[in-house]
Amino acid sequence: MGKTLVYPKGISNTANRYAKRVTYDLGPIHSIINAATHLDVAFVPGGDDPFPTIIPMIGQMGSYEFPSNGIDEPLDCYIHGYVSARMMNMARAAGDKGLPLCISATHVDGLVLSLSPFSHSYNYRSVVLHGYGVPVTDEDEKNYAMKLITDGVVAKRWDNSRTPPTAGEFQSTTILRVKIVAGSGKVRDGEVSDEKQDIDSMEVREKVWSGIVPVWQTLGEPVPSSTNMVKEVPAYLKEYVSKVTEENKKHAYAAMKLPAP
Amino acid sequence: MGKTLVYPKGISNTANRYAKRVTYDLGPIHSIINAATHLDVAFVPGGDDPFPTIIPMIGQMGSYEFPSNGIDEPLDCYIHGYVSARMMNMARAAGDKGLPLCISATHVDGLVLSLSPFSHSYNYRSVVLHGYGVPVTDEDEKNYAMKLITDGVVAKRWDNSRTPPTAGEFQSTTILRVKIVAGSGKVRDGEVSDEKQDIDSMEVREKVWSGIVPVWQTLGEPVPSSTNMVKEVPAYLKEYVSKVTEENKKHAYAAMKLPAP
Repeated sequence: MGKTLVYPKGISNTANRYAKRVTYDLGPIHSIINAATHLDVAFVPGGDDPFPTIIPMIGQMGSYEFPSNGIDEPLDCYIHGYVSARMMNMARAAGDKGLPLCISATHVDGLVLSLSPFSHSYNYRSVVLHGYGVPVTDEDEKNYAMKLITDGVVAKRWDNSRTPPTAGEFQSTTILRVKIVAGSGKVRDGEVSDEKQDIDSMEVREKVWSGIVPVWQTLGEPVPSSTNMVKEVPAYLKEYVSKVTEENKKHAYAAMKLPAP
Repeated sequence: MGKTLVYPKGISNTANRYAKRVTYDLGPIHSIINAATHLDVAFVPGGDDPFPTIIPMIGQMGSYEFPSNGIDEPLDCYIHGYVSARMMNMARAAGDKGLPLCISATHVDGLVLSLSPFSHSYNYRSVVLHGYGVPVTDEDEKNYAMKLITDGVVAKRWDNSRTPPTAGEFQSTTILRVKIVAGSGKVRDGEVSDEKQDIDSMEVREKVWSGIVPVWQTLGEPVPSSTNMVKEVPAYLKEYVSKVTEENKKHAYAAMKLPAP
């Protein structure tokens, strides 16, 4: 009991600066990914192109092989979105080994305004994962991943929308399963931090306001489409909208060690 | 008059899918970068490491060489934050040519919930830039960039905090100037989009709620630090907090062709 699973420290994920902010624990890392409205996914096209490329995508941690695995147990990252032809062609060409990818998620929880700009910071939660992406071809696994990702956008949405997919939808949807080999998370919270020289200067402190501006992502009142025929906003959607906003707000205030107002 | 400057289309930034959502215009691209609370910056470590790495940083578009350039004119991207030792060492080693970087910014403006999960989408504004990063060494340029970036976090903060920097602060701060060689933006807005077969099915439309959940980043009431001595939240900060929240909200509703409530 109480064993915490961690990602191994390797060359690509070992943080040196602000080491106390870093976590390698699977639980918090996977939670930060799953709470993000979008993920940034980077790949290296190679050839004549000297640049890595970042594509914003949506994704969720899950395990088709071990579907009962909890958030703090080994999981793959399933991603979907604008899978550029280049990324997909490279992932297919990479075969079983997969295409090396970097996946990141960042939540800004507050602007930390200290006396000197050089001590300014953010309260934030961020994650960087490294792994190998393989296109999902198995029908069952693709269905599993599509439900996982859809319910990551709005909980229970899969069962409350027109499913199952048609053959055309199924074929035109591309999903990558990313087998994670390294991961790390960084969390900054707590008080404004200042240099002693500034704290000791009444002149500075009488002039400069210091404190934190809490920041959170708000989900607003759902707006029906012009073709919508369902009169009331369904309960699962209402609940999701208020739950997510409350949780985001709670993170922003918890980072300041305060209850959300 | 009326000439719109655009980024050239190259191998690394030409979008093929959803081409009508894409812009190469400098103005909207730079605005999306400057409105982001954080940027994702990717580099390729190389050597034994097969993965690109993404680091969340803060940054702003600006031009030290041509400080009067407007938002729709050529600008560099100045970035700052947790510049990992690897990224910095590589940027230094790259010399005048600079280190190839990818910079991305994404704003989620709404969850677009259509009848079928496969037509689900987001309203969003995203940008991907490619460019060469060089550490800023010139003192004047570094001061320019530090003010630019600080005022990007909170407008007018530089002049309202303890400046100028001490020698120690100045030396320990690392800023990269990224010369942009390619850029593209994508903007998705407007109505829910559905397949004809779903729109034509009364059974589907009577069962599934369709519409958009607006999403925006909220800046909350500033919370003073335990050492703060300025009694009132200063006007520039109050104004910034409400202005940014209003603008974010306006984007979420404008994407639905609605005025913000």
